[in-house]
Amino acid sequence: MTTTRRRVVLVGIGCGDPEHLTLAAVRAIAGLDVLFLVTKDRGDDDELVALRRAVVAAHRPAKSPHREVELRDPPRPWRTAPDYHNAVEGWRAARAKRWERALGNDLVPGETGVFLVWGDPSLYESTLSVVAAVRARGAVEFDLEVVPGVSSLHVLTARHRIPLNRVGGAVQLTPARRLLEAGMPDGIDDVVVVLDPGTTFRSLDPAGLDIYWGAYLGTPDEILMSGPLDEVADAIAGVRAEAKARKGWVFDTYLLRRREATA
Amino acid sequence: MTTTRRRVVLVGIGCGDPEHLTLAAVRAIAGLDVLFLVTKDRGDDDELVALRRAVVAAHRPAKSPHREVELRDPPRPWRTAPDYHNAVEGWRAARAKRWERALGNDLVPGETGVFLVWGDPSLYESTLSVVAAVRARGAVEFDLEVVPGVSSLHVLTARHRIPLNRVGGAVQLTPARRLLEAGMPDGIDDVVVVLDPGTTFRSLDPAGLDIYWGAYLGTPDEILMSGPLDEVADAIAGVRAEAKARKGWVFDTYLLRRREATA
Repeated sequence: MTTTRRRVVLVGIGCGDPEHLTLAAVRAIAGLDVLFLVTKDRGDDDELVALRRAVVAAHRPAKSPHREVELRDPPRPWRTAPDYHNAVEGWRAARAKRWERALGNDLVPGETGVFLVWGDPSLYESTLSVVAAVRARGAVEFDLEVVPGVSSLHVLTARHRIPLNRVGGAVQLTPARRLLEAGMPDGIDDVVVVLDPGTTFRSLDPAGLDIYWGAYLGTPDEILMSGPLDEVADAIAGVRAEAKARKGWVFDTYLLRRREATA
Repeated sequence: MTTTRRRVVLVGIGCGDPEHLTLAAVRAIAGLDVLFLVTKDRGDDDELVALRRAVVAAHRPAKSPHREVELRDPPRPWRTAPDYHNAVEGWRAARAKRWERALGNDLVPGETGVFLVWGDPSLYESTLSVVAAVRARGAVEFDLEVVPGVSSLHVLTARHRIPLNRVGGAVQLTPARRLLEAGMPDGIDDVVVVLDPGTTFRSLDPAGLDIYWGAYLGTPDEILMSGPLDEVADAIAGVRAEAKARKGWVFDTYLLRRREATA
C-alpha cells in the first residue's frame, strides 16, 4: 500500500537476546526503508550499535537495501546535576531539533523509518518522548507506531524465575535516585530499581529485604545474583565493579523484595 | 539433546496479538511435547483457549504431533472474599495438587511440557507461583524455564503511544482493590491499575488526573480511550459495560497519570 505520509515506527527489541524480538518487530524491520541509529555523544556504545545492526541484518530480506542515518546525541547531562529534570529537558530539546531535521531530510514521504529501542519503548527510555515532541511540533508530518517489546523488568524476573508481584500486592518501578532520597516506599513490598549508576541498594537498611539482581540481562555476559540483601550486597557490588572494569560499561537492574508482606 | 529430566517451560505469549510472540516463544512452542492448557472452572473461557490452540497450531512444524493436557481450575475465590489472600492461597494449593499429578503422570522424563501464559509470566499471573510451588515440593522433579513476554503494561502504553514514566519519576502497578482502599499513592504520578473487576477509577477524586484506558488490548476487539478523568470516566464506564454485555467478558487495564508532576 502506498501512502504519501512518512511513517515512523519505534520498535522494542527486548534486552540483548536476539530471540526476544517479537514477530511484529521482525516484520517492522523487514519493511523499513531507513534505520535511524541513535548513538551516544561519547561514542562508547560501539557494542550496542553493532548489536542493533546485527538484529537488522538478521531480519532483512536478501537484496533489500536500506539507508542508515546516525543520530549522534548531544552531550548528556549527568544524573547528579543539581536540576536534573531541567537538564534532561534541555538535552531532549537539542535532540529533538536534530531528529526533526533528519526525519524531514532523510525520510521521504511514503517511506518507513525505524528506531530500534532496547527493551520496551515506553519504559525509562527517551526515544518515544523525543519523537512525540517532534511530531507535536508539526514541522515534519509523520504517522507514528510503537511496537511493544520485552522489557528488562520481565527478563529480570523470568531469569530469576520469580513472580514480580505478590497476591494482591502493588509493585513500584523507581529510578535509583528516588530510592536514594526516599528509601523503600511505605506499603510496597516489591520495588524494581532502574537507572542505577552505582550500587544504591547499599544505602538501604537491609533488614528483611531480599535482592534479585541482574546485569547484561539476556546477553551471553548475563550475571544473576540473589539473596538476603545483608548477605549478598557486598558480593554483588564486587561482581558489578569487576564486570564494569572488564567490559567498560555495565547495565543492571534489580528487584528489592520485603520478606514479610506488610499487607 | 537427550535428558532424563522433565522440562517445563512457561511461555509468555503477549496480549492477544499473535505477532506479540517472541522468537523464543515460537521456538519453545515448536519444541513442545505436551501442551498444558489451564482452563477456568466455569468453562467460560472457550475463546481464550481457542486463541492459545491457534497460537500452537501456527507454530508447530507439520506432522509433529503433541499431546494436550487440560488442567481445569478449582472454583476461584471471589476478589471480594473477606480474607482474599488466604482464599487465593487455598485455591493455589488445590491447583498445585492437580498440576503436580499431571506433571508426574502426563509428562515423561526427557519430554518438554509448555504452559502458554498471556502477557508475561511474572506479572499478575499465578501460573509461575503454582509451578514453582510444585517444583519446591520435589515430589515431581523437573527443570523450569520462563520465557518473558510482552505484557499488557507495555501494550497499553504502546497503543496509546505514550511513555509509562516521567523523567526521574516512579511508576506503581497496583491491583484495583488497593486503589479502592488507599486511593492514588502519595508522590507517584503514574499508576497502572490491573485486575479491576469494575470501574474503580470512578472511586477517585478525578482532579488533575488523566486516564489511558485499554480493553481487549492487542486483539481485533481492542478499544482505547483517554482524556481527563473527570471528562471521560463515565464514557469509559459506558463503553466497558456495553463491550462486556456484547462479548460476555472484558479484560481491561489503565494508566492513571497526574497532569502536574509532584516531583
